[in-house]
Amino acid sequence: MYEGPIQDLIDELGRLPGIGPKGAQRIAFHILTTDKADVERLAHALREVTEKVRFCATCFNISAEETCRVCRDPRRDRTSICVVEESKDVAAVERTHEFRGLYHVLGGAISPIDNVGPADLRIRELCLRLADGTVTEVILATDPNLEGEATATYISRLLLPMGVTVSRLASGLPVGGDLEYADEVTLGRAFQGRRRISEETRTA
Amino acid sequence: MYEGPIQDLIDELGRLPGIGPKGAQRIAFHILTTDKADVERLAHALREVTEKVRFCATCFNISAEETCRVCRDPRRDRTSICVVEESKDVAAVERTHEFRGLYHVLGGAISPIDNVGPADLRIRELCLRLADGTVTEVILATDPNLEGEATATYISRLLLPMGVTVSRLASGLPVGGDLEYADEVTLGRAFQGRRRISEETRTA
Repeated sequence: MYEGPIQDLIDELGRLPGIGPKGAQRIAFHILTTDKADVERLAHALREVTEKVRFCATCFNISAEETCRVCRDPRRDRTSICVVEESKDVAAVERTHEFRGLYHVLGGAISPIDNVGPADLRIRELCLRLADGTVTEVILATDPNLEGEATATYISRLLLPMGVTVSRLASGLPVGGDLEYADEVTLGRAFQGRRRISEETRTA
Repeated sequence: MYEGPIQDLIDELGRLPGIGPKGAQRIAFHILTTDKADVERLAHALREVTEKVRFCATCFNISAEETCRVCRDPRRDRTSICVVEESKDVAAVERTHEFRGLYHVLGGAISPIDNVGPADLRIRELCLRLADGTVTEVILATDPNLEGEATATYISRLLLPMGVTVSRLASGLPVGGDLEYADEVTLGRAFQGRRRISEETRTA
């Protein structure tokens, strides 16, 4: 529809996830009126990501260096590993400030439909990290869906004989949510996982 | 939250219109797993737009050359000019295939609130294009809102004494819309602009 460069940019932007034809056009026209230096920064950032980002040699989180920021941090608790599916999940857990241990990024979840088996995930690498006995707890923080549950079950069976504590994130009602709108599986899990209120927890 | 390059990219993407923090993260992780050549094409397209796109010397539509594709096209009707606010509007009118004349892009609409007066738009340039008498009809296709109407009124007052036919796009119910959900102004305009059905139009 447009001439040359602007249509090329609209086409390229339209290939990105979550950007439709209208959004691509809007961004392209925004770029047209943006400072050259700002556009240059964006183009540079795109290239940098493909060139500089790699995966941590220990936990497979995305990293700018050989090992990631979490693994390098001497203040992190090295006896505990939180197992997640993707690097995005590391960021999500970090935002909670609830966990001070290390991570292990599997690179996905077991999903026969997508042809992803245990061998396609970094499960062997996780077992190797437990070999020296430093790690005493593994928290399985895979997604609370079919694939995530299957992956958690598979890994827990492998790890339990190794004598580490294995736990799974609690399922239940989302905070700020509405009981009325909770699906029955989530509500059922919330019942199963109900916690007794004692003097101790009430004052906590 | 993330390390170095990936966070830089998320920040840069988040500055684009219509992309929120979640969307920026999603795109950044997509880029991470995208072919280097594809990313290079996107970065190149971004630079090309800032470097190569300019405005047509005649109609001020965006163009890759001195004059735009429409102005260069010898098959276009040179007696008719469609006046629009932005280059995006040229693309919208082109998609209808209803208009075979030339365009004139004002670069906005009169809006005292945004400090945009007639002198900030390419109205003088439009008058100059009418000087040699080739153009006999001007269609004012500014947006059907307060600013667009004000701009159309202003321009029509300038052009009518020059002896050209000046028209405004019809207002009315959008095709495929629902009468029930039409706002009262639109419905009122649809009444004002009602067209008598004759044998002629019925067979058209």
